[in-house]
Amino acid sequence: MTPAVFIWGMGLMGASLALRLKNHGYRIQGAVRSAASRTALIELGFTDVFTEEASIIQAMHDTDILVLGLNLSDCYPALTLILSNPELRKKLIIFDMCSTKQEICDWVAKHYPDARFIGAHPMAGKEKQGPNAAEATLFEGSTVFLTPLKDQKAEKQKVLLQAAEKIWQLAGAKTLIMNPEEHDNRMAYVSHGLHLAACLIARLSVTGIKPEGTAVAGSYRDMTRIVQSSPVMWSDIIRSNKENTAHWLKELARECNSLADGLTNGSADIGQLFTEAAAARRQIMQT
Amino acid sequence: MTPAVFIWGMGLMGASLALRLKNHGYRIQGAVRSAASRTALIELGFTDVFTEEASIIQAMHDTDILVLGLNLSDCYPALTLILSNPELRKKLIIFDMCSTKQEICDWVAKHYPDARFIGAHPMAGKEKQGPNAAEATLFEGSTVFLTPLKDQKAEKQKVLLQAAEKIWQLAGAKTLIMNPEEHDNRMAYVSHGLHLAACLIARLSVTGIKPEGTAVAGSYRDMTRIVQSSPVMWSDIIRSNKENTAHWLKELARECNSLADGLTNGSADIGQLFTEAAAARRQIMQT
Repeated sequence: MTPAVFIWGMGLMGASLALRLKNHGYRIQGAVRSAASRTALIELGFTDVFTEEASIIQAMHDTDILVLGLNLSDCYPALTLILSNPELRKKLIIFDMCSTKQEICDWVAKHYPDARFIGAHPMAGKEKQGPNAAEATLFEGSTVFLTPLKDQKAEKQKVLLQAAEKIWQLAGAKTLIMNPEEHDNRMAYVSHGLHLAACLIARLSVTGIKPEGTAVAGSYRDMTRIVQSSPVMWSDIIRSNKENTAHWLKELARECNSLADGLTNGSADIGQLFTEAAAARRQIMQT
Repeated sequence: MTPAVFIWGMGLMGASLALRLKNHGYRIQGAVRSAASRTALIELGFTDVFTEEASIIQAMHDTDILVLGLNLSDCYPALTLILSNPELRKKLIIFDMCSTKQEICDWVAKHYPDARFIGAHPMAGKEKQGPNAAEATLFEGSTVFLTPLKDQKAEKQKVLLQAAEKIWQLAGAKTLIMNPEEHDNRMAYVSHGLHLAACLIARLSVTGIKPEGTAVAGSYRDMTRIVQSSPVMWSDIIRSNKENTAHWLKELARECNSLADGLTNGSADIGQLFTEAAAARRQIMQT
């Protein structure tokens, strides 16, 4: 039987998953904060969208899988509300959609070790936010990292993995299992650090030169595109991955200084740098 | 009367301009290094394409405007060959298409002060190279910086500017006049530095983590796209703008270290950083 899915937080990510699962015949309930989001979702065909805590908890008793589509810092009060209810804690399979995994997995393991929780991070998104930006195809072809909690029984872990894998396969994504620490370190190198570098580069461009009359090309447009991402969401992401991203920033700073010195003293080989960088990119992109 | 244009170096940029001018009824002659490029250009409809120095110089006597579509380091021997010929030096209006302007403008001013030369930098391109990648629309909507030599007579400068502006307007570009020093400094902040940062970021991604099983999202793809640019061309660009790019790299390193420290000691405001970066990007992109 098709499980009933409740999506708490139906912004871009949550609503996109909801649209996809609805297309597959799933019964979707959900929760949002604002009346405006609720109206937008009703227009998208979702009738069971709640904004009040009491109604949310009540509806959840009728659900098998809970997906948290919330920013990380909003997940904690939501999880507290749900997991402090013994019946819901026992019944629900829960996964989140946050971009960092160690903090939330450690938090659940510490506070509710018997919760049926697995971390999930879909590598998808766009700069636009909210349910109106949602697309049933958002996750098509993307990768979703699944990060089981440490010290969970193998049998329980298997059930959680299967449930999450099923949902994400229906969304058109492929899943990759990884431990939360390794996940967060990798993200610093391929996503989180890059977002910070893009911000620093964009900010430098107006402090270093007069912006008037400065035409830019595709290089600038593409490299700084991601600075338009949600400041609130990214505050959460970087805060919860600050050690890895700080380490990455220090490495980038070291590389920048070393290259600047090489340019000044004539030892830098720029052709070699481009060749190595293109090879590195191919290696990362092909995996 | 439509002037005759000779394009020396019909790779992506040169051949794209050639296609566009041919569509406007211009008679185009050109020069390339390899027989393969010549064959490709003949297939594109260009019959007068030369590969031998003697034929190139001979054909050039029949030309009004010479466009150099060569990499910067190849421009110097080409310019020496042309400008050491008094008849051609007097006759030809010449502009280049290189991404840095101070070095070449200073070189011409020093060696051939009476040359009818103006620097040009079309802010367009793509990762693919060679005449087969050429498109008549490549420059459409782009900006072309025009950088007159210092100490040129106003009247002569006006003639050169008008000739270059005419060509680039036909190509669908808008032109911006700027002095070479200011141009190169700006490019460090909106293009050249960014290419180096993209290379360092791509290279870090395989040295810091195991590349196997590391899915990446659009942020990585977009931020590192430009590392696929021509290593030879970018060696020239960075060499000829090394002081500005070294300075920019030092600034980025300082920003990275400062942000890393802020993350470690808790003083970094990531939401503010994203907000400032997005505002800076809007300011730069709207000009």
